[in-house]
Amino acid sequence: MLEDKNPQRTQLSELGEFKLIEHLTQNFSITQKSTIKGIGDDAAVLSFKNKQIVVTTDLLVEGVHFDLSYVPLKHLGYKAVIVNLSDVYAMNAIAKQITVSIAVSNRFPVEALEELYAGIETAAKIYNIDVVGGDTTTSTSGLIISVTAIGEVEKGNEVLRSGAKPNDLLVVTGDIGGAYMGLQVLEREKEVFKVNPNNQPDLSMYTYIVERQLKPEARKDIVELLNKLEVKPTSMIDISDGLSSEIIHLCKQSKVGVDLYENKIPLDPQVISTCEEFDIDSTTIALNGGEDYELLMTISQEDYPKIKGNPNLTVIGYITDESNGMHLVTRAEQKIPIIAKGWNALTS
Amino acid sequence: MLEDKNPQRTQLSELGEFKLIEHLTQNFSITQKSTIKGIGDDAAVLSFKNKQIVVTTDLLVEGVHFDLSYVPLKHLGYKAVIVNLSDVYAMNAIAKQITVSIAVSNRFPVEALEELYAGIETAAKIYNIDVVGGDTTTSTSGLIISVTAIGEVEKGNEVLRSGAKPNDLLVVTGDIGGAYMGLQVLEREKEVFKVNPNNQPDLSMYTYIVERQLKPEARKDIVELLNKLEVKPTSMIDISDGLSSEIIHLCKQSKVGVDLYENKIPLDPQVISTCEEFDIDSTTIALNGGEDYELLMTISQEDYPKIKGNPNLTVIGYITDESNGMHLVTRAEQKIPIIAKGWNALTS
Repeated sequence: MLEDKNPQRTQLSELGEFKLIEHLTQNFSITQKSTIKGIGDDAAVLSFKNKQIVVTTDLLVEGVHFDLSYVPLKHLGYKAVIVNLSDVYAMNAIAKQITVSIAVSNRFPVEALEELYAGIETAAKIYNIDVVGGDTTTSTSGLIISVTAIGEVEKGNEVLRSGAKPNDLLVVTGDIGGAYMGLQVLEREKEVFKVNPNNQPDLSMYTYIVERQLKPEARKDIVELLNKLEVKPTSMIDISDGLSSEIIHLCKQSKVGVDLYENKIPLDPQVISTCEEFDIDSTTIALNGGEDYELLMTISQEDYPKIKGNPNLTVIGYITDESNGMHLVTRAEQKIPIIAKGWNALTS
Repeated sequence: MLEDKNPQRTQLSELGEFKLIEHLTQNFSITQKSTIKGIGDDAAVLSFKNKQIVVTTDLLVEGVHFDLSYVPLKHLGYKAVIVNLSDVYAMNAIAKQITVSIAVSNRFPVEALEELYAGIETAAKIYNIDVVGGDTTTSTSGLIISVTAIGEVEKGNEVLRSGAKPNDLLVVTGDIGGAYMGLQVLEREKEVFKVNPNNQPDLSMYTYIVERQLKPEARKDIVELLNKLEVKPTSMIDISDGLSSEIIHLCKQSKVGVDLYENKIPLDPQVISTCEEFDIDSTTIALNGGEDYELLMTISQEDYPKIKGNPNLTVIGYITDESNGMHLVTRAEQKIPIIAKGWNALTS
């Protein structure tokens, strides 16, 4: 790749806080009817008529949630938006606005923040949302990104974690484990690079899983699909911390148990082959690897005909009585308890 | 003061992320009709019927916005909420919900976060708002707090920065410069403490200004007062960065000029005496010191009889044509241009 040996580096202090926000958001246009006033006042003004709104917020911290040695800033900006939108879609709502705050050390030039905001802008365009506010400040060390997302949902259409009922089907979207295995590949390449900086990594065998890690997508399409199919899940959650951890959330909040079938868990062939290469059990990865941003939901058995055969939706288990507990039914038809080993931001 | 020589220190990792949020927010109750679902799902669900909502967000960074050597964590939690509510009130809206995210290094025990959240809870109770969401994670260094506040306002009642008209009156609430001088006193005591750790600071002469710095209030009462007086300001902004900087924002966004009268700027006697002690010009402090969280607004001359004599509201100037520029009219009746030297988070 041709490299610019003298990339432009504009010091943050050259712009100052107000001009920096202005500069970074100058390309952001307002496209949503519900946005009355965006960036530029004490607060944004929004109007949702009679619809309910949902609000969710996430904080991404350098060195904890991302490693800039292999995450391009543009991808990071994109992902920071996606992880929040995913929470909105998990409520069966449609995301409409976000605010973005960043704290950044002076080691970042303005051009780096432009990259970050380019990723944010791309996500905003693709997911049809407005960036309506934010804050930009210095940090004493790394980069911190705080995003709050706002969505709308017709009254009564919101789906909580607490509505699963015995006999409901447990359904997952897409396939899982990819983002975690992508991270393993990137971490390995980072170690190789440390030993031999001239080594050119060949990631062509891992494109799908690396993309799952670096450029995850949120399942807006599923909210639209469910609406079209006239299926309202009884409960729903997004998979950010690993399947087992999310299943436990759903079951505990719904006061139900579950039988999860190992042989039903959807895995991409690249996840299976990479697990073999790394000598890791792929079910363990599916259960405990995080960051796939798929949706996990329960639906009434009555709705099964509506989702049957849909390639986006896989039935992976059944909701049971709370007294039955939460179990994985293995390929050998053994029942083992599901425990949460999900990625934990406070112990990692 | 009696000190607990063996304060309890519970490591963050002992609780883990989910339990930590649960633990810190267990006392938080839902009090607002507009809160349908608070903490505990992928997102909060809110319902504002036909009202518009306003959204604002702020990021507070240790070492940039606060110094834990003299800011008690409880006060910090309180202030983190206040700075956001102030932005909501500056829209002529009433704050209803907040989300709070924190990134915190492992050097903080759980008990420290309990203190922080006790301050957040106190602010929530006093200002009648619900804490409906948030995120808790580790940071590689200090403490970072990100708060997003949501408020409601009847359609058409919102007040932007851009509505000031020539001949409008420029009005400020309360008195200004106190928070900045409180900071000067605290910084001086910190230096004294470094030299002589046994020195017991006597802050009794500075109680008002130290409280303005450590425990600022947001002017919810002013939004209620304006509503009662049936005065809708033509423009409004909160004073977080200093009077001159905020006046410039209002004038630029409204495309008007201003004559600000030095002798009308409301100063507390303690600000005047402390400025004398520190040998600083009090007008310079009023213009450039930040963090007072008072409101600056413009009102139509027609509304003057309604606010005349109200101790909360002081007329400090007149809006002029844009071509006249922005000027301070000094006590000596000299006109000097207003320039922004306000506190700047990116160069401090």
